[in-house]
Amino acid sequence: MHEQPGEVSVRQRLMDSAVLLFTNRGYAATSVREIVEMAGVTKPALYYHFDSKEGIYLAILDDLVKIADEGIAASRVASGTARERLEGFLLGIYGLFETKKSWVRMINAVFWGPAQGVPPFDFETFHTKLRFVISEIVGEGIAAGELRAADPDDVTLALMGVLSFNMDLDLAHPELGLGRDGFRRVLDLLFSGVAAPTLTSAH
Amino acid sequence: MHEQPGEVSVRQRLMDSAVLLFTNRGYAATSVREIVEMAGVTKPALYYHFDSKEGIYLAILDDLVKIADEGIAASRVASGTARERLEGFLLGIYGLFETKKSWVRMINAVFWGPAQGVPPFDFETFHTKLRFVISEIVGEGIAAGELRAADPDDVTLALMGVLSFNMDLDLAHPELGLGRDGFRRVLDLLFSGVAAPTLTSAH
Repeated sequence: MHEQPGEVSVRQRLMDSAVLLFTNRGYAATSVREIVEMAGVTKPALYYHFDSKEGIYLAILDDLVKIADEGIAASRVASGTARERLEGFLLGIYGLFETKKSWVRMINAVFWGPAQGVPPFDFETFHTKLRFVISEIVGEGIAAGELRAADPDDVTLALMGVLSFNMDLDLAHPELGLGRDGFRRVLDLLFSGVAAPTLTSAH
Repeated sequence: MHEQPGEVSVRQRLMDSAVLLFTNRGYAATSVREIVEMAGVTKPALYYHFDSKEGIYLAILDDLVKIADEGIAASRVASGTARERLEGFLLGIYGLFETKKSWVRMINAVFWGPAQGVPPFDFETFHTKLRFVISEIVGEGIAAGELRAADPDDVTLALMGVLSFNMDLDLAHPELGLGRDGFRRVLDLLFSGVAAPTLTSAH
């Protein structure tokens, strides 16, 4: 599909409207008419860009996969300790989340919510890609003696847990959400440990 | 409502059936007829125990609040270090989750899923109660010098994050779920830190 200047924003407006409706009303209960009304455009505009309700839903997920792929690539930190690279990467992903919160919220609604006849989509792709990058750096960090010699899968899941919980907390309870600074603090706790540092007489 | 011996299991069967249907088909799409058919009982049995679809939904949540309250009370560990008490408490809550997985799954479906006309319920109650107990022990542990002198809210959220992510992981990807032993390992990582221990010459 060939896009003229100016058309991008119509496409974007349609997708943002669909995201809100799919999240709050549900995919099944949302009509093409409601999407175009919320976006302030006409039905043919939706059909031109997406063909159908199914089409706009899949386009949203395709866009999100593309954004995630670009974000994952851009957030990889080339140099530094394993801890610096992991913190840099995770903060990059968190920053990405902050720009697409409503889209992530829609994924939660579709993933956890009741079956609604949405076209199939492999949500594992996000999880798998993140896990791959994190476990790679974790493995290097353990091999280099920078990270604790624990099971790499446990370390990877602990890191993903901090990321995932902070995103969900922000979506579920914006007033409790820690934001970027808080996310960094909790990540630091995971690296340094919640237990008080052991006192030593060494210098 | 007065329950005779033997009626408890009908009540339980009705609730378990409703949980599955509300999770997979959604509250709005589920009829009283479907619930009683899945439970293998007649409509009057549901009306006798719960009055209505709304009634069975609220009874499920009331039961869950009661189970959570009892579990929170039973999981409090009276003695030991702050770390021992926190690990004991969190493992107790995780054990509770393991006995009521399908019910927690339903809460996720209702909480994250689209609006479906479910009667209002304050889901915050679970979060608030857990947070209260954890933050109390965290505060004592920091005051006693057993836990790192970090922001108590950060430490509390880090601990809740490990719990919450492990439960969600098990619900979303049973094949990746760490189970009780894995949950304990990740909790240990959070206490001891993912970073390699600093070498010292002290003994």
